[in-house]
Amino acid sequence: MSHQQFKDCIDACVACAVTCSHCATECLKEEDVKMLSKCIQLDLECAAICRSAAEVMSLGSEYSHHLCRVCADVCNACAEECEKHAQMGMEHCKECAEACRKCAAACEKMATAA
Amino acid sequence: MSHQQFKDCIDACVACAVTCSHCATECLKEEDVKMLSKCIQLDLECAAICRSAAEVMSLGSEYSHHLCRVCADVCNACAEECEKHAQMGMEHCKECAEACRKCAAACEKMATAA
Amino acid sequence: MSHQQFKDCIDACVACAVTCSHCATECLKEEDVKMLSKCIQLDLECAAICRSAAEVMSLGSEYSHHLCRVCADVCNACAEECEKHAQMGMEHCKECAEACRKCAAACEKMATAA
Amino acid sequence: MSHQQFKDCIDACVACAVTCSHCATECLKEEDVKMLSKCIQLDLECAAICRSAAEVMSLGSEYSHHLCRVCADVCNACAEECEKHAQMGMEHCKECAEACRKCAAACEKMATAA
Repeated sequence: MSHQQFKDCIDACVACAVTCSHCATECLKEEDVKMLSKCIQLDLECAAICRSAAEVMSLGSEYSHHLCRVCADVCNACAEECEKHAQMGMEHCKECAEACRKCAAACEKMATAA
Repeated sequence: MSHQQFKDCIDACVACAVTCSHCATECLKEEDVKMLSKCIQLDLECAAICRSAAEVMSLGSEYSHHLCRVCADVCNACAEECEKHAQMGMEHCKECAEACRKCAAACEKMATAA
Repeated sequence: MSHQQFKDCIDACVACAVTCSHCATECLKEEDVKMLSKCIQLDLECAAICRSAAEVMSLGSEYSHHLCRVCADVCNACAEECEKHAQMGMEHCKECAEACRKCAAACEKMATAA
Repeated sequence: MSHQQFKDCIDACVACAVTCSHCATECLKEEDVKMLSKCIQLDLECAAICRSAAEVMSLGSEYSHHLCRVCADVCNACAEECEKHAQMGMEHCKECAEACRKCAAACEKMATAA
């Protein structure tokens, strides 16, 4: 699979990584941080794995689809947690949930295609 | 400086990191790799620093402008090297040089604004 | 400066990155997460910059000393914050403060030598 | 699985990442870079995945064993390639092959234990 074919998935991964890091930082500024601890934790794991998937795809690696498999899973887990707080009005969690679902879909497609 | 204000610079950094990694990989597939060794080396350094600048800005860190200072410098060095090969018709180097110059400008602005 | 000369500093940076990520995760499990929000934030910034400094030094980059300059600063800031909680008996903050001070010293030396 | 239980595997991953980046850089300085292009490519993929596995384990993530699975595979592939050049007397490839095999074993254990 070419770099060009990876492009949509790379874009989704880098956007998700940035949004997850931002969400973690914004969660840390909220009044009730304790309630958001699982969200922050998943943000960090998701950001790390998204960054890695993006890098490995940028290198055109044949291991990309394996990383995309893991990435889709952590993105869905992070989205699920963020969606709880999005319903309570937290804008950064709403944005993060959307970026995670979009990235999960792109990675799912990549993992299956491989 | 807010996450929103960092946004253009983050986008330039992640795009540059992806393009540099891709350029390194494409250089490795060229007939005369030896001639491209400095280019590959700078691609790797530039990609690493761009990823880092993007991550640190995503976290809204006050150290962002310091990283952007370093990032602007390595981007310009990488662009200068890639431009030599772009003139010889290497498309990946042309793309990379453009991404690097764009990122250098965004980082320069960020470093100075801080 | 050779890879070998960078070795001590690389080791200090990777150890610090791992300890900072671990400290963030442990802080998130504490009862009073709110009180630790600045600590978690600095852990994340410090981990990102340490990882980057280690990668750039591993590549033998001439930009290493610039990154080490930034790294020394964020390490000292993170150590200062962690030391407050270390005094209150938090073991992960104590470990983190030590790793940060050690890394700051190694990076300081590298930044000055360059 | 605790951070402490992850410790050996984290150490193997960070050591492998550093050694792979260093091997790539040293390969780029060799006379016959063309012959080493596959080695450099695998060094970069392996370094990226090792860094990621180390970060995710440092965060105590439950996705760690999935990343360790991928990491073991890329480490073995990189070791296999480096071993060819190690036989021809390239010291950086010899070091890299050893770090990769050690990391593969640690990751294999982690992936299976999970």
